[in-house]
Amino acid sequence: MQPVNVPLGARSYAIHIGKGPLARVGQECRKLALGRRCAVISDRNVAPIYSPAVLQSLRAAGFEPHLIVVPAGETAKCLKNVQACYDQLASHRLERQSFIVALGGGVVGDLAGFVAATYLRGVAFVQMPTTLLAQVDSSVGGKVGVNLPAGKNLVGAFHQPRLVLCDLNAFGTLPEREFRAGLAEVIKYGIIYDAPFFVRLERDLGKLLRRETRCLGEVVARCCEIKTEVVGQDETESGLRAILNFGHTVGHALEAISRYGQYLHGEAIAIGQVAAARLSAAQLGLPAADVERIRLLFHQCGLPTSVRLTPAQRTKLLAAMRLDKKVSDGEIKFVLAECLGKVRWGQAVPAALLHSVVDHLSPNS
Amino acid sequence: MQPVNVPLGARSYAIHIGKGPLARVGQECRKLALGRRCAVISDRNVAPIYSPAVLQSLRAAGFEPHLIVVPAGETAKCLKNVQACYDQLASHRLERQSFIVALGGGVVGDLAGFVAATYLRGVAFVQMPTTLLAQVDSSVGGKVGVNLPAGKNLVGAFHQPRLVLCDLNAFGTLPEREFRAGLAEVIKYGIIYDAPFFVRLERDLGKLLRRETRCLGEVVARCCEIKTEVVGQDETESGLRAILNFGHTVGHALEAISRYGQYLHGEAIAIGQVAAARLSAAQLGLPAADVERIRLLFHQCGLPTSVRLTPAQRTKLLAAMRLDKKVSDGEIKFVLAECLGKVRWGQAVPAALLHSVVDHLSPNS
Repeated sequence: MQPVNVPLGARSYAIHIGKGPLARVGQECRKLALGRRCAVISDRNVAPIYSPAVLQSLRAAGFEPHLIVVPAGETAKCLKNVQACYDQLASHRLERQSFIVALGGGVVGDLAGFVAATYLRGVAFVQMPTTLLAQVDSSVGGKVGVNLPAGKNLVGAFHQPRLVLCDLNAFGTLPEREFRAGLAEVIKYGIIYDAPFFVRLERDLGKLLRRETRCLGEVVARCCEIKTEVVGQDETESGLRAILNFGHTVGHALEAISRYGQYLHGEAIAIGQVAAARLSAAQLGLPAADVERIRLLFHQCGLPTSVRLTPAQRTKLLAAMRLDKKVSDGEIKFVLAECLGKVRWGQAVPAALLHSVVDHLSPNS
Repeated sequence: MQPVNVPLGARSYAIHIGKGPLARVGQECRKLALGRRCAVISDRNVAPIYSPAVLQSLRAAGFEPHLIVVPAGETAKCLKNVQACYDQLASHRLERQSFIVALGGGVVGDLAGFVAATYLRGVAFVQMPTTLLAQVDSSVGGKVGVNLPAGKNLVGAFHQPRLVLCDLNAFGTLPEREFRAGLAEVIKYGIIYDAPFFVRLERDLGKLLRRETRCLGEVVARCCEIKTEVVGQDETESGLRAILNFGHTVGHALEAISRYGQYLHGEAIAIGQVAAARLSAAQLGLPAADVERIRLLFHQCGLPTSVRLTPAQRTKLLAAMRLDKKVSDGEIKFVLAECLGKVRWGQAVPAALLHSVVDHLSPNS
């Protein structure tokens, strides 16, 4: 498969998608003129499976890798683990020419990327995403960061990777729940940018759920292309890039109030995208039939589309939304869809409508 | 006094130097089209003296400032205080359009700048340096960061301020030791870039030590000009900018082994610059008379030029130097002077020479 190129001037890089690039990481890094020392940051789930091949490939190519293992899960994306990584980098004397390899899902990529962005004021890094969500979303585009108790991704940087290696073989060991959660970001690309792609997902959902490699490879590549096109036009999110946050205002708030434990990110944004579709119907006239197609596709993926909240939780959810990075002068700004494949960003929503949609997140309403 | 302009394309900014700009911060910020909410980060020494006027000026200009006070001293430049600042920014709902004002010395500027560089992936910030060292060095150029237990400034970012306000009145409350420590960076500019400026410092040292405002204003402005010229040519330190680190390899290592408590930064780099001058004599033929002029000028400022180390401390010092950010492929690179006003960066030094110079840091040797 041809690599997807991310054209960002001096910071351009390639995304390799296929069966097996993980074991070629050493050769690929050799082409990038990086220093000898490097650190592979991975988590307790992924490291036992994939780090031996990755370390061996790096050593065979003449690098001196040091493995850093962090806990797994969204709660690991915190400053405490950033500090632990820094301490290990210092004790293994990583230098400015050294580089960091992120081996794992979105949590590892965001955490390792933030460490790379800030250690010695920035060292090179390579993304090796092993989950569907990380391959189609978080590993591309240079957003890195960690959570605060007050909210998700409130701390971070823009730091582009030098290389992204998406190994489709990694899906072989990906738990079903994680795989399905990744589909929430895949579907998002159809809604925000590419109606025919949305139709394809409706049609090929069976193949995807069976993890047919060929279909998956094409879908991952299309998602990376869309993200690349969007990021290429607006690297630091002064405008267009905001469309990638469709469904994320409610989604992030749900994750925050459940302390990042209850929902996977993909599950939270599935609920968030259904909420955003309902807001879109009220504000931009998205047809009710399309709201239902969106809801149904998430549902067929086995993703949640509703959530039962107590009145206290509703209040907390609305408060958490106000901490969203997209808040401007105290007003929450939404990404809303006019039709499938076309969205507008920076959309204010009347408080009454927002409350009503939050009330209707419950399965019975 | 005319502002010094820092020309960095879209990230250009002005440095205002004079008597009283601190109380005009609100008006100056109004010109920058920033959001309403802001945080003033200061320390326990500076906040009681200057924050009332700063907060009042910001409020009078229509801003909503929130004061965050951190402990004073180099040990405050740590991730724990970064975390404490993040938490306060989140609880006061700072937004992407909000900004951070750093009010204090180099520690506050570096810490607040790193918080600004990473909170919400970067918000605007304004530097209000209240020490000589911060006015001539750390507030200009965009380097921000914090220390790790393993070394100084090992974590950080490049994040340019939107505005720098150097208030010469602030020297009225600056403790003598802090003021003299600032002169170590002032003298550095003469050594690395401007021999006539070095001669002026030798001549006008009395006026400077008496803190004569007119002389001080001219000296601060010349230092800012030199730093601006160097940073303008090499913002992210791929080459020339490294000359600003003259004396810093030994200086940072001294600070690290004394756990940032014993020496002020200026004191450590006074010792470091004398060591670097001696290395320069051996490696690049800097005349012995100039080594002595350098030593003498620091000495006349009341700065230390030697340090008594036990054998164990010498070993630790050499190890700490190896953690310096300028280490490349395991080799420590020095900035060394050919003559007053002209230095070369990236200079390797034979281990035996380095050991001998470290041995001769002691006052009796």
